[in-house]
Amino acid sequence: MEKRGLLYEGKAKKIFATSEENVVWVQYKNSATAFNGEKKAEIEGKATLNNEISSFIFSKLREKGIQSHFIEKLSATEQLVRKVSIISLEVVTRNVIAGSLSKRLGIEEGTVLEEPIVELYYKDDDLGDPLITDEHVRVLKAASLEELAFLKKTALEINEFLKELFLSCGVKLIDFKLEFGKDETGSIMLADEISPDTCRLWDLDTNEKMDKDVFRRDLGSLTDAYKMILNRLRGESTHV
Amino acid sequence: MEKRGLLYEGKAKKIFATSEENVVWVQYKNSATAFNGEKKAEIEGKATLNNEISSFIFSKLREKGIQSHFIEKLSATEQLVRKVSIISLEVVTRNVIAGSLSKRLGIEEGTVLEEPIVELYYKDDDLGDPLITDEHVRVLKAASLEELAFLKKTALEINEFLKELFLSCGVKLIDFKLEFGKDETGSIMLADEISPDTCRLWDLDTNEKMDKDVFRRDLGSLTDAYKMILNRLRGESTHV
Ligand SMILES: Nc1ncnc2c1ncn2[C@@H]1O[C@H](COP(=O)(O)OP(=O)(O)O)[C@@H](O)[C@H]1O
Ligand SMILES: Nc1ncnc2c1ncn2[C@@H]1O[C@H](COP(=O)(O)OP(=O)(O)O)[C@@H](O)[C@H]1O
Ligand SMILES: [Mg+2]
Ligand SMILES: [Mg+2]
Repeated sequence: MEKRGLLYEGKAKKIFATSEENVVWVQYKNSATAFNGEKKAEIEGKATLNNEISSFIFSKLREKGIQSHFIEKLSATEQLVRKVSIISLEVVTRNVIAGSLSKRLGIEEGTVLEEPIVELYYKDDDLGDPLITDEHVRVLKAASLEELAFLKKTALEINEFLKELFLSCGVKLIDFKLEFGKDETGSIMLADEISPDTCRLWDLDTNEKMDKDVFRRDLGSLTDAYKMILNRLRGESTHV
Repeated sequence: MEKRGLLYEGKAKKIFATSEENVVWVQYKNSATAFNGEKKAEIEGKATLNNEISSFIFSKLREKGIQSHFIEKLSATEQLVRKVSIISLEVVTRNVIAGSLSKRLGIEEGTVLEEPIVELYYKDDDLGDPLITDEHVRVLKAASLEELAFLKKTALEINEFLKELFLSCGVKLIDFKLEFGKDETGSIMLADEISPDTCRLWDLDTNEKMDKDVFRRDLGSLTDAYKMILNRLRGESTHV
């Protein structure tokens, strides 16, 4: 497989074409951004950590029969994935109220939801990725009714799996964002990344934040937190 | 029926107790507010117009078998209504994209929706009445699943009726907000008001705005616009 030209550059990754039409080359970046790009920093080591963690999680999901775009990890900061046409929805699953939902509903961060909920945000930087309803999805023609049902069902399945995976290494999965895309045959698959950039992860015992909120809220070293997540996932760090 | 003490004062109305436990006395105010109270004015004649229009519409709805809290119009600015415990949801029905939805989705104001949509906003001034999803309603316990289904169904029925009513006098119903409440037996009924404060109304031919956007966007005389709506509803003004 040969790396070809840059297809697009996002806030966290660069996507390159390859010699294979339906495969793209993902290069993780050291950039950290928050609040729709208003807060920015270059953080040495972030690319490696997110690439490692995302590859680890996509591999685990594959073992459990949940397919994604992930093909293989190429290097410390690079992955090979199937090329998809990204659906313009951020699919957010929540187990515990935090962040924007806490502000929206006026409910304290940390409040456990009786059942997980799935929210949809319209993936549009210019509009600030607004929350939308199922009916707005129809208006935007962002997904059909059947596709939407599939996205929600899959998000909840992934939630059950990830909740368990993290719990087994002493981490609470508070919420996470997924992106999906359509491959050349039109079938929908999980894409983008699953990393501490896209999940809220709290230590099981101390509730210490081990995700991008460390950066958003200036809570310490982002790489220390992400390293801890990677080590725990690999079983290299014990927790009490 | 005797008027008793003030129960609460909102931005547009005062609600007084009466000698009858399950009846309240509504006094419309001349205040106009927008952007969650940031923009304010006292507009002579507004109370009378909204009381007239709201009474007219509630009466028409009653004729069509759609019950509301409305009992009778008492004076130029006063109504007698059934006392309810207001459900903390603003139920917004839209036929044409305008206002906040146009901004949220990045779709031009005036775009006609293929089918009407119903949105829910959490009625909480401190939170800025945020858009919420059905799942947030469950989290907030603002309404049960059955109640929510009833609210949406009723909103769509009222939409069909109002669309027709306005169309027959040369006015397009773009969108409108409803509030519902529970009476002493726990049964849900339409409450609050239906007026140019709570509807977007555009002239059928010219698209001239005849609703609170006249105030929000400084488009001219609010009372001229509201008077036109009242006259048209009463059949006292012809339109081409
Ligand atoms: N398998 C894939 N095929 C094509 N594009 C993808 C794939 N996975 C993710 N993308 C897209 O790559 C772009 C770059 O990623 P990222 O830097 O995270 O972007 P953003 O700034 O939108 O967060 C995003 O638009 C993302 O949706
Ligand atoms: N039938 C009713 N019984 C009790 N309260 C009502 C009834 N109808 C409307 N209300 C409430 O009266 C209050 C005053 O109305 P308004 O001035 O429009 O308030 P707001 O500032 O919330 O828009 C609101 O909280 C409204 O929900
Ligand atoms: Mg991204
Ligand atoms: Mg009101």
